[in-house]
Amino acid sequence: MTEFFKGITPLRYDPSSTDLAFRHYNPDEIVMGKRMEEHLRFAVAYWHSFAWPGGDPFGGETFERPWFGNTMDLARMKADVAFEMFDLLNVPFFCWHDADIRPEGDSFAESLRNFEEIIDYLGAKMDGAKTKLLWGTANMFSHRRFMSGAATNPDPDVFAWSAATVKACMDATHKLDGQNYVLWGGREGYETLLNTDMKRERQNAGRFLQMAVEYKHKIGFKGAILVEPKPQEPSKHQYDYDVATVYGFLKDYGLEDEVQMNIEQGHAILAGHSFEHELALASSLGIFGSIDMNRNDYQSGWDTDQFPNNTPEVALAYYEVIKAGGFTTGGTNFDAKLRRQSLDAQDLIAAHAGAMDICARGFKAAVAMTEDGTLEAMRQDRYAGWDTSDAKAMLASDFSSIAERVASTGIDPAPRSGKQEILENIVNRFV
Amino acid sequence: MTEFFKGITPLRYDPSSTDLAFRHYNPDEIVMGKRMEEHLRFAVAYWHSFAWPGGDPFGGETFERPWFGNTMDLARMKADVAFEMFDLLNVPFFCWHDADIRPEGDSFAESLRNFEEIIDYLGAKMDGAKTKLLWGTANMFSHRRFMSGAATNPDPDVFAWSAATVKACMDATHKLDGQNYVLWGGREGYETLLNTDMKRERQNAGRFLQMAVEYKHKIGFKGAILVEPKPQEPSKHQYDYDVATVYGFLKDYGLEDEVQMNIEQGHAILAGHSFEHELALASSLGIFGSIDMNRNDYQSGWDTDQFPNNTPEVALAYYEVIKAGGFTTGGTNFDAKLRRQSLDAQDLIAAHAGAMDICARGFKAAVAMTEDGTLEAMRQDRYAGWDTSDAKAMLASDFSSIAERVASTGIDPAPRSGKQEILENIVNRFV
Amino acid sequence: MTEFFKGITPLRYDPSSTDLAFRHYNPDEIVMGKRMEEHLRFAVAYWHSFAWPGGDPFGGETFERPWFGNTMDLARMKADVAFEMFDLLNVPFFCWHDADIRPEGDSFAESLRNFEEIIDYLGAKMDGAKTKLLWGTANMFSHRRFMSGAATNPDPDVFAWSAATVKACMDATHKLDGQNYVLWGGREGYETLLNTDMKRERQNAGRFLQMAVEYKHKIGFKGAILVEPKPQEPSKHQYDYDVATVYGFLKDYGLEDEVQMNIEQGHAILAGHSFEHELALASSLGIFGSIDMNRNDYQSGWDTDQFPNNTPEVALAYYEVIKAGGFTTGGTNFDAKLRRQSLDAQDLIAAHAGAMDICARGFKAAVAMTEDGTLEAMRQDRYAGWDTSDAKAMLASDFSSIAERVASTGIDPAPRSGKQEILENIVNRFV
Amino acid sequence: MTEFFKGITPLRYDPSSTDLAFRHYNPDEIVMGKRMEEHLRFAVAYWHSFAWPGGDPFGGETFERPWFGNTMDLARMKADVAFEMFDLLNVPFFCWHDADIRPEGDSFAESLRNFEEIIDYLGAKMDGAKTKLLWGTANMFSHRRFMSGAATNPDPDVFAWSAATVKACMDATHKLDGQNYVLWGGREGYETLLNTDMKRERQNAGRFLQMAVEYKHKIGFKGAILVEPKPQEPSKHQYDYDVATVYGFLKDYGLEDEVQMNIEQGHAILAGHSFEHELALASSLGIFGSIDMNRNDYQSGWDTDQFPNNTPEVALAYYEVIKAGGFTTGGTNFDAKLRRQSLDAQDLIAAHAGAMDICARGFKAAVAMTEDGTLEAMRQDRYAGWDTSDAKAMLASDFSSIAERVASTGIDPAPRSGKQEILENIVNRFV
Repeated sequence: MTEFFKGITPLRYDPSSTDLAFRHYNPDEIVMGKRMEEHLRFAVAYWHSFAWPGGDPFGGETFERPWFGNTMDLARMKADVAFEMFDLLNVPFFCWHDADIRPEGDSFAESLRNFEEIIDYLGAKMDGAKTKLLWGTANMFSHRRFMSGAATNPDPDVFAWSAATVKACMDATHKLDGQNYVLWGGREGYETLLNTDMKRERQNAGRFLQMAVEYKHKIGFKGAILVEPKPQEPSKHQYDYDVATVYGFLKDYGLEDEVQMNIEQGHAILAGHSFEHELALASSLGIFGSIDMNRNDYQSGWDTDQFPNNTPEVALAYYEVIKAGGFTTGGTNFDAKLRRQSLDAQDLIAAHAGAMDICARGFKAAVAMTEDGTLEAMRQDRYAGWDTSDAKAMLASDFSSIAERVASTGIDPAPRSGKQEILENIVNRFV
Repeated sequence: MTEFFKGITPLRYDPSSTDLAFRHYNPDEIVMGKRMEEHLRFAVAYWHSFAWPGGDPFGGETFERPWFGNTMDLARMKADVAFEMFDLLNVPFFCWHDADIRPEGDSFAESLRNFEEIIDYLGAKMDGAKTKLLWGTANMFSHRRFMSGAATNPDPDVFAWSAATVKACMDATHKLDGQNYVLWGGREGYETLLNTDMKRERQNAGRFLQMAVEYKHKIGFKGAILVEPKPQEPSKHQYDYDVATVYGFLKDYGLEDEVQMNIEQGHAILAGHSFEHELALASSLGIFGSIDMNRNDYQSGWDTDQFPNNTPEVALAYYEVIKAGGFTTGGTNFDAKLRRQSLDAQDLIAAHAGAMDICARGFKAAVAMTEDGTLEAMRQDRYAGWDTSDAKAMLASDFSSIAERVASTGIDPAPRSGKQEILENIVNRFV
Repeated sequence: MTEFFKGITPLRYDPSSTDLAFRHYNPDEIVMGKRMEEHLRFAVAYWHSFAWPGGDPFGGETFERPWFGNTMDLARMKADVAFEMFDLLNVPFFCWHDADIRPEGDSFAESLRNFEEIIDYLGAKMDGAKTKLLWGTANMFSHRRFMSGAATNPDPDVFAWSAATVKACMDATHKLDGQNYVLWGGREGYETLLNTDMKRERQNAGRFLQMAVEYKHKIGFKGAILVEPKPQEPSKHQYDYDVATVYGFLKDYGLEDEVQMNIEQGHAILAGHSFEHELALASSLGIFGSIDMNRNDYQSGWDTDQFPNNTPEVALAYYEVIKAGGFTTGGTNFDAKLRRQSLDAQDLIAAHAGAMDICARGFKAAVAMTEDGTLEAMRQDRYAGWDTSDAKAMLASDFSSIAERVASTGIDPAPRSGKQEILENIVNRFV
Repeated sequence: MTEFFKGITPLRYDPSSTDLAFRHYNPDEIVMGKRMEEHLRFAVAYWHSFAWPGGDPFGGETFERPWFGNTMDLARMKADVAFEMFDLLNVPFFCWHDADIRPEGDSFAESLRNFEEIIDYLGAKMDGAKTKLLWGTANMFSHRRFMSGAATNPDPDVFAWSAATVKACMDATHKLDGQNYVLWGGREGYETLLNTDMKRERQNAGRFLQMAVEYKHKIGFKGAILVEPKPQEPSKHQYDYDVATVYGFLKDYGLEDEVQMNIEQGHAILAGHSFEHELALASSLGIFGSIDMNRNDYQSGWDTDQFPNNTPEVALAYYEVIKAGGFTTGGTNFDAKLRRQSLDAQDLIAAHAGAMDICARGFKAAVAMTEDGTLEAMRQDRYAGWDTSDAKAMLASDFSSIAERVASTGIDPAPRSGKQEILENIVNRFV
């Protein structure tokens, strides 16, 4: 054991506790026929919790963790602390970027050796632990070589570097029995149109994603390939703007049956959408995969990556997840970071515990809404007219015949209440 | 002649004028081998200029035009005034919604009769005038029957009404030799997900658009079918959010070769994009059609529909239009309204004249940037590496072979300056 | 009785009801030594509930209420329906603009006669009813005469008209024993700086507000004068942007002890603030007065005026209200309108009932947080260093002596955790 | 000479150049009776140009300058390069934070020694150079000791450290004959209200600013004390939100005649205002001081600090500066950073040159608008009614007498056009 979490004991489910405990999250509670842990599939993000120093654009490191630094020994200490936290929290999954877990080397080869060694170290730890890998991903945005993009870089050598990097990360994810592989293209976009060949960059991004899918099949990786949309930041415009944008992109490259969405609440907000919108849209397009359950401050125009803390919002999100059939390979990742003033080990544990509790409350409310059925019945009733054979025949017909019928029958459609407030009241009976 | 524009004489090109005149727009000036009028293809929007009363969410009519009212006589007076303005401004095109030009009747049949009569009246006026129809469209958002959508309404009868309406508007557009037919789905979206079956609504919208395309071919209409994206307002979410969203939608319904985009600066802004982004994207996807050249206030979160007044911005937009090959059936529509305090006839003329001048200045700057070629040469140079056979071979290969090469050759790609500020300086030599 | 609410019976407190009832709001429940009704002081807004036709910038009336029109008879019918709703909901207060309750006349004198007659009618209804007047206000933004402002109009005659109007409204508010008088300056701002003399307009606004305060004292009105901040819309910029802005304005005109704030959640959001920020700021400046508890959609850049539906948000707001000492003359007004698709009488009742319930839940949570005391204790502990005599002495000293001490003692202040996530978890124990 | 700008020669005024030169900025051109250099008073920001490594929240250093590091030798090399750039650009001013110019020491005393030594080094360089100091300021936001604020920190020792720091920076500014001293409170705000005592923090900030003013007078510093507003980022809420907010704050602490505003275009945008609004407001409140002429991307919700590149926008800003009487101690600082992909020395020169040119064009346009006088005449004409004795008498009267006059005379004010589009056209004749 390291000293980092000294004094903190494993969190238990205790609804009446005012201490570090789960008041709502009971992993073993059976809901809709399954243990809550299997529904929610919580994951900790390695980067924010263990690699992020607490900097922001106007200030540097605040956290001063003992494992900060660029050596293999420190990387192993970081992994030890991480698994201690996974145990304290009893989380079933974690996620990493290559750059979170290994020191950067002086060459691709050295970075790869460091990476593979750490993957083995993680693998050994996972053997004796409960926590599995929800997904792996490659950090292709922090190093200056990626400043103009990875797959969309004007320099083909950066494309090559990126391809080799994703291959290594997919290999490692496969080796660790990861459930998914994620791509987030933070620099796959542009700073200014003036120097950008958008058509070419988009094509290269499309080809890169095809290669990732081809490689998945080649190595027999059974997990899902997930793309994570974000509208901008760090780039002025990111090609994976939102779910609708990525869908058009997937269609263009024949990938709509191969790739799913990893949807983040904060990114949805930054794109001008509600989280539930992005979830419902992905579900209706058949590309829903997994979620990053971290909120964005509604008044901040940059990515704040905060732990969720609003039950009604979380409930509406899980309601869409349930309507989408729940998670298969996906799960609930907290791509959330402590506020940079939250210096203590206890803050890290409390933040995750609070988030897990909020998710459990929200999920249970969503289950109750689903099982109650009123919301869904009202929705279906609203569209009942479309289930008639007349309506179906109309959809199969054409403007001319419809216009004839309108003229001859003199229809005058009467508006019906949309009942939004009543529906919102119903939701509030459950949250 | 009506009295409305009394005292205002036709505007001429006079660079040194401080009066109502064009200081930059000379329709007959030859630029890139064509008259400027044929490049820019200006259009006046009937609705804002002649039908909008000056109201906003907190106040009612300010304009008190003598033709306001719901009779055929007033509709004809409105048309007379409109054509007087077209003549004063010497604009080659105008655009309408059905509801702008005809009084609403008590039934579909009566509205249709009114509409057809006015179409004939407009046709007669066009015979003796220079101004042609850039596009027609149907207003399927103002009347309460459309409060829950038109093609996406939960009530199939509203779909039917909408189909009959679009048929009539397409017929009329065809009759008047319109160059395009536009669909803007202001209510094709939702107020709350709680009462919305997004999948079904999206399918109905897709089928409706297919019907419009089928009808176009049936009647032999040669113009383009244009969809105009907007993210929201009046709806909380509109399905035609932005160019990327519409593209995915078109792909889903096999319409990407049949339908093009009518892109508005203000709507781009509201969707979180620059205007030039939306233009460049549409161009790179092969779906660029036409533009609405009206700006949105950058600090207002609602649609302000203001006349353009910033030359550098307009220049960057036309630079993308030129790169897309210029307009074919499309043109430069001013979907712009006077500020509601701009009560006078002179304001209406001055607003259009100023906008046409700004567009002419911006267009000429864009032509100069294009002919100079530095910008494009720098862009191409940035991607030169991708034109090599090695790079092409890499795109045709796979992760494994690329990774092998990266490992064996020890590449270490060196970042190159993106030169954004230098590029911006070059633009400023022309605007 | 009118027919409008036919079939709807007075709402009772019934926690287990799934019908139209209060599940959380029990007016008679004693909380912190007072009946909940006396704490929350709910008010219905006449304008949204009875005068607003359901229009938006892209569509007209949807509601078709039988009392719509511009006659005294219809105005009385509207008042009858309003009081029926007050009774059904058992709300202790309502609020009006002059324009909500009386038909506009052809002259100031006629409008005033209509107004006074309706005030008497309302007075008579209030005699036999429970509902009192929380505040009156003047609508000086809808009519075209106010298009360029009321007190800030370039035309002194509009200032005069506005002064006479506010006088009449203050007289009426006084007559009906109103608890407050409110000013919202929707057009007190500008559309473009180019035609605006901001300094003069601000001075005229200041003088106008002084006159209102002088008049209050002259007639012996004991209620508070409240200003309601909003950043923009309908204007591009409104002088009463937010609480901080109004505070500077009040200081300039010597009014900071005479005027308080009526703070709206939606307006706070539009100004880039959280609701609780505006409340906490007003409280810390000593100008907190009353609230408009209606939310804005976080993704819509215009005023959506929706009924509150998120308990945790409401709880944080009431937590600040409680810290400010609770309401004295102020209360909880719902400046909220039905969605325009919510056509039915039932929607109107359900919307208010749901909002009252959300407020009751939030308020009770805020009381619990207050009584628990942990949050406040942690806050005070964070600043404990400032309660020492050394710290107080330092504040009374100067840079030179402080710098000397820093140099001589070699202090090196150590950061302490801000514990944000732990605090958020504590809040979540109560909401 | 260092090698950094090797091959770049001093920039000259050459309107026809397509190379690195000034096409619009001619420092010696006489405009409104003064050399353009004396009007515009350009300043380079030391931090962005020489200390910023090119990082953003998702990536690290891109710039790799030879002077990066934390030694005195490197600090001197940085100063050498800086003055070489000042000479190449012929800028009359520069600005610094303490942390930009000296290495951080292990203690306050060591940092101070480093600072004083560098100040002497700068002083020596300035002796032989043209460039003077526009302002100095203290960086009290980057180091982790300031993570919870400087003057508003919960820990009095951080207040002390900050006081000693500002004293040292004011001393140094005074020593170098700086024209102003600036305070920007990036961490003077909060991350969460839950742990914040806003009233106390605001009071401490007020006392701190008073101390700074007292110290200015004590040492006989004749320059202005400037506060730079910004709404948020890095904090969720910064107390110096915008000009209006700071004004209320100054009034509270009796500082409105002692402190002026340093207004940044980018910060204005982030606060929901246009730049010209903030300038006009500061001017009308008598607290206009200086400007940071760096734009924010309109589609990015974080501080992008880009060099200005839009002449019409810059022209409207200088139009307000001219109306405010022009700069006295203030000037035009470029608080602008290169895009992080702009790696080359040439980018740094070109960015400043382009910005200076844009400012010169905008300023000349603003002068032309001013000298033409049409805009101002139209504005004055709009308010002419307020210059009558009747209007003045009305302002000195009260509601009762005004209401009597309105009733007795039957006024019916007629709206007059606001002519916004015509005014915008006039502006476009000059930009």
